[in-house]
Amino acid sequence: MFFASDNSGPVPQAVLDVLAEVNQGHMMGYGADPMMDEVRQRIRDLFEAPEAAVYLAATGTAANALALATLIEPFDTVFCTPMAHIEEDECNAPEFYTGGAKLTLVHGSDRMTPEALTRAIESQGNRGVHGPRRGAVSITQVTEVGNVYTLAELKALCDVAKSYDLPIHLDGARFANAAVALGCSPAEMTWKLGVDVAVFGGTKNGLMGVEAVVFFDPSKAWEFELRRKRGGHLFSKHRYLSAQMAAYLRDDLWKDLAQNANAKTAQLLDGLRKRNDVEIVNDVTANMIFFRAPRALHQTLQTSGARYHVSGGDLANGPSEGLLTGRLVCDWSLPDTEIARFVSLLNAA
Amino acid sequence: MFFASDNSGPVPQAVLDVLAEVNQGHMMGYGADPMMDEVRQRIRDLFEAPEAAVYLAATGTAANALALATLIEPFDTVFCTPMAHIEEDECNAPEFYTGGAKLTLVHGSDRMTPEALTRAIESQGNRGVHGPRRGAVSITQVTEVGNVYTLAELKALCDVAKSYDLPIHLDGARFANAAVALGCSPAEMTWKLGVDVAVFGGTKNGLMGVEAVVFFDPSKAWEFELRRKRGGHLFSKHRYLSAQMAAYLRDDLWKDLAQNANAKTAQLLDGLRKRNDVEIVNDVTANMIFFRAPRALHQTLQTSGARYHVSGGDLANGPSEGLLTGRLVCDWSLPDTEIARFVSLLNAA
Amino acid sequence: MFFASDNSGPVPQAVLDVLAEVNQGHMMGYGADPMMDEVRQRIRDLFEAPEAAVYLAATGTAANALALATLIEPFDTVFCTPMAHIEEDECNAPEFYTGGAKLTLVHGSDRMTPEALTRAIESQGNRGVHGPRRGAVSITQVTEVGNVYTLAELKALCDVAKSYDLPIHLDGARFANAAVALGCSPAEMTWKLGVDVAVFGGTKNGLMGVEAVVFFDPSKAWEFELRRKRGGHLFSKHRYLSAQMAAYLRDDLWKDLAQNANAKTAQLLDGLRKRNDVEIVNDVTANMIFFRAPRALHQTLQTSGARYHVSGGDLANGPSEGLLTGRLVCDWSLPDTEIARFVSLLNAA
Amino acid sequence: MFFASDNSGPVPQAVLDVLAEVNQGHMMGYGADPMMDEVRQRIRDLFEAPEAAVYLAATGTAANALALATLIEPFDTVFCTPMAHIEEDECNAPEFYTGGAKLTLVHGSDRMTPEALTRAIESQGNRGVHGPRRGAVSITQVTEVGNVYTLAELKALCDVAKSYDLPIHLDGARFANAAVALGCSPAEMTWKLGVDVAVFGGTKNGLMGVEAVVFFDPSKAWEFELRRKRGGHLFSKHRYLSAQMAAYLRDDLWKDLAQNANAKTAQLLDGLRKRNDVEIVNDVTANMIFFRAPRALHQTLQTSGARYHVSGGDLANGPSEGLLTGRLVCDWSLPDTEIARFVSLLNAA
Repeated sequence: MFFASDNSGPVPQAVLDVLAEVNQGHMMGYGADPMMDEVRQRIRDLFEAPEAAVYLAATGTAANALALATLIEPFDTVFCTPMAHIEEDECNAPEFYTGGAKLTLVHGSDRMTPEALTRAIESQGNRGVHGPRRGAVSITQVTEVGNVYTLAELKALCDVAKSYDLPIHLDGARFANAAVALGCSPAEMTWKLGVDVAVFGGTKNGLMGVEAVVFFDPSKAWEFELRRKRGGHLFSKHRYLSAQMAAYLRDDLWKDLAQNANAKTAQLLDGLRKRNDVEIVNDVTANMIFFRAPRALHQTLQTSGARYHVSGGDLANGPSEGLLTGRLVCDWSLPDTEIARFVSLLNAA
Repeated sequence: MFFASDNSGPVPQAVLDVLAEVNQGHMMGYGADPMMDEVRQRIRDLFEAPEAAVYLAATGTAANALALATLIEPFDTVFCTPMAHIEEDECNAPEFYTGGAKLTLVHGSDRMTPEALTRAIESQGNRGVHGPRRGAVSITQVTEVGNVYTLAELKALCDVAKSYDLPIHLDGARFANAAVALGCSPAEMTWKLGVDVAVFGGTKNGLMGVEAVVFFDPSKAWEFELRRKRGGHLFSKHRYLSAQMAAYLRDDLWKDLAQNANAKTAQLLDGLRKRNDVEIVNDVTANMIFFRAPRALHQTLQTSGARYHVSGGDLANGPSEGLLTGRLVCDWSLPDTEIARFVSLLNAA
Repeated sequence: MFFASDNSGPVPQAVLDVLAEVNQGHMMGYGADPMMDEVRQRIRDLFEAPEAAVYLAATGTAANALALATLIEPFDTVFCTPMAHIEEDECNAPEFYTGGAKLTLVHGSDRMTPEALTRAIESQGNRGVHGPRRGAVSITQVTEVGNVYTLAELKALCDVAKSYDLPIHLDGARFANAAVALGCSPAEMTWKLGVDVAVFGGTKNGLMGVEAVVFFDPSKAWEFELRRKRGGHLFSKHRYLSAQMAAYLRDDLWKDLAQNANAKTAQLLDGLRKRNDVEIVNDVTANMIFFRAPRALHQTLQTSGARYHVSGGDLANGPSEGLLTGRLVCDWSLPDTEIARFVSLLNAA
Repeated sequence: MFFASDNSGPVPQAVLDVLAEVNQGHMMGYGADPMMDEVRQRIRDLFEAPEAAVYLAATGTAANALALATLIEPFDTVFCTPMAHIEEDECNAPEFYTGGAKLTLVHGSDRMTPEALTRAIESQGNRGVHGPRRGAVSITQVTEVGNVYTLAELKALCDVAKSYDLPIHLDGARFANAAVALGCSPAEMTWKLGVDVAVFGGTKNGLMGVEAVVFFDPSKAWEFELRRKRGGHLFSKHRYLSAQMAAYLRDDLWKDLAQNANAKTAQLLDGLRKRNDVEIVNDVTANMIFFRAPRALHQTLQTSGARYHVSGGDLANGPSEGLLTGRLVCDWSLPDTEIARFVSLLNAA
């Protein structure tokens, strides 16, 4: 019953199979492997973007930071929420890769509103040479609090950004979970709304460590390549990144994995909803649940083997009726038996 | 009636005199000029810190950014308020000089409270390798909104920082105005409270462009020197910086200038307080006044020649009874006649 | 007959096997996986360094740049040869990761001499505050021109560095090939000579993409971890890096692979030495051969399917007797039949 | 008899006079002072470049580093000689300001030849994504070894750079000395040859600390302004920089000062040439002399009060007939009596 993270599970056999498939003979490196040609074409097809520049990076932090560094200048600022991964969990990687740009936080919610974004943009970057200059807007889909922007919500944010001539970066670490939740195509969730560069995440959805960075306008492609190399993120034996992503794209594996993860999450949600003492905090349509529950319930679940993060108080001590927030994240690999076991624990507790 | 800024006035004759005094013959450069020896000794005496390392920089942005870069690492974060000069008015200079460190904003007020500072520290830098690491606390005295921390308030902040083993940077662009307002010594406002490095500002208080950076623990001195050179802030003809600072220190000129500026501000304040339609926003003890007043009053004052910034609405249009916030800043050089004229305008309007 | 690079071949089945072995269930990420414990212990044992801090990075560029950034400051310089990978092939990654440090080139040969190193150190870093400061010495073993330093040669360089109190970085992209060529232990080639941090390369010697960074003095370990995360080089699903390195360390696979590559190279060398029109440029004891031969010979070999880099002239045109330099690099995976075929081509041509 | 440097002397009275002239009343800051309008216009006129963007910086290191950072990207390299100030004397400022770009050294002489420059360009920046990319060519006029490029020589270098589409930066710390030596106009030495950005130095030629950065193509102007602010090099009381430069430009003071310095140098040269035991190392047409002379002569001169740098051996000890190299630099302020005294020492020794 491991619900602590979706970056802690194994990879599907199909990934191992394509690694074995590509493990034959000598091959050009540094992105010139034939399997990267397949990947590029599949992503262009998937995104209905025949001109897109497509690159792979092994971590989400690298993908985000390199994308932002390509979009903006060191004297710029990036607008994002306070819980954005680029703000909270990347140890200043965006500041590092951009050469010292700033992140300006859009307060209010994990889902930016157009009003809050406008307010943040108006408050920053209007000081002329005293800077910083307005650089880019970074949107995370699924958000770190498990919510999924609707296409209309994303469109409204993109419209705000465009009205200031700002490029838009989509942190899609859970891109597949969102697309499945919305029932939309990758194109509908990106360039059709105005997104300039999207990170199409694979690592949290079943790969060992590969993210695709997709520039819908390829004019910045060469700069990205140099920045990736300079960051030590260009793999000599690039085929092993390509292979993972190829496995992910063939037969819509990316979609199957996300559907699987989202469906398991929905089962957990059903179990939680049956209890009167549990409050669901976020809109659960993807693969994350935030729920408030009495300390005693958390203790029972965790003692029985459920692993997940709890915040808002001390799990070990304190009053049993105190409410703490638990975070459940499902990845594709969770056995049905463990889902069922957690639900039965909920029913019994 | 120029109240728009204290960095827009002339310098006292004494500064020109010492520039002329030092303008004789050839002299060692790069900080090895004899007048820097005088400056160093005077600052050590003034701060009662015989071991302090003392450096000059020509701008406050350089002084702040170099000091912070010497204190912290690129994977750290600095705690400061949202209106701190390092956040708002330095075009990412701290991020640049530190190699990409972050600023974490302490919300609530221009004067951080110990509670808000603790909350910010607790919220950031507790994510282990996901970083950032907690780096330093930066306090601005006088704040950008014209308030002066009491010594007890400063002490409480320093105590919080020290409880987390964080070094403390004091942005003292208006150090003299604060010390005069508090009636305290430079030592009492800095190392006696726990401040590790203070910027002793000169530019806003009558110099052409010189700030002293004072490290109370000199162990980081050599690193600062290399960083200053690397930033292009080491002057070959350093004597002309030394001369300005020497003039500032001799005969307590720094104190006279600040007393003068603060006193003029108090006269403006008296004038404002006599009006029922004016609300004073900040605690005016130094050289800045923020006041809310009807648009019509602002118009009258500005039409009559008063120059100062107005925010919170459109000065030119809108209802005459609408309240806008004006900012008055006095420097040492304002003629008494202009102060009197502004007050009489207030009385007459 | 692919002799163009040792980063273009497949990985041994053992690597795929351990990837499959580790691909079970959920596991802590970010380096806290149990297999990393195994890796750490095996490397400490292998290097006879029970206190060493051990980290993995996916590329050699990242390993080198992160190691250097941990050793030095932005106002420092690193001493290396003009053909060092960090100078020639990393797109300014060392400058990027160090925050703008310089590389000072030690001229003369791919194998630095103590005299040349001393000369370079004396020429740079003696300008006080005008900087840069002397930072570190970076040695590449095997060199980029295929030569292997003897232990005595390495010792002499380390002694020079230590006499200036400079830390020593060993770029060991081909560490295994060198150790096998010298018949020495990893400890003998590193800390016993004075090396402070060694990159124990895996990628060129049969892994998909993993290098171990070994700090013999662990005091800088935490900084390295933060820098690695900040660079986007900390893998969430770290077990897949650990697995590769574990496979490499178990049963001395690293040594077998290198012996294999070196032995094949020796066979090529024998074939080349039988020809009068071929001059061997480097001391071939590891897995690289540089040889000068008439253009016609290169053409024959390449037309027959041999792939390797040629420099020093135009292969396609020009006089057939013109001498061009070919570079042959063997990896572990080259079939014996291809080695034999190349040799027979040499005999026949 | 201070010949150690041209950055150690006083400033002409005219500079103090304009400082006093500008020291009146309140004035817009940050480059918006009226005297900057005068400076901008005068420089545009002087350089016959009505569109040029003109900025001031207080140090040569800042001027160079900011100019380069505006021209190139962090993954680029700058071509310059090993004795260039940007390589030798700026403590990695170019690497810092560019965000980690590299300097590639053009070996051979302090005056690059077109052949050597071509060789360096060909050797670097042709490795595709392995980078670095070719960024800019930086030429120093007068060179650090006291030589002055002819216009034809400069043109040949610019032609090489242009044939690779590389922008050209002119480090003109001693711009005036060179222009006077060549008898050419500023335009003839810059944009008419192809120079893209020139540093028109003032500090070494009589100012306290001001350099003008002149972009002949103003399209990068706004970026430069943001970079200057971010580097802490935008002065709030900018008028005091403007005043120095205005004094420098009025009545061709810059030319008078340089003529004066060059003429004094020529007198020293005459004295040196009369001795059989002295060899002049450089082409002395500007304000620097490098001369080889017996240790005994250096000792005599220095004991008698001449101050200048000696290299190539130990001045205090060693054989009296050993040859050491002395460097004499004249600034505008040297009294004729001291020049005469040095010459008479030469005659007598």
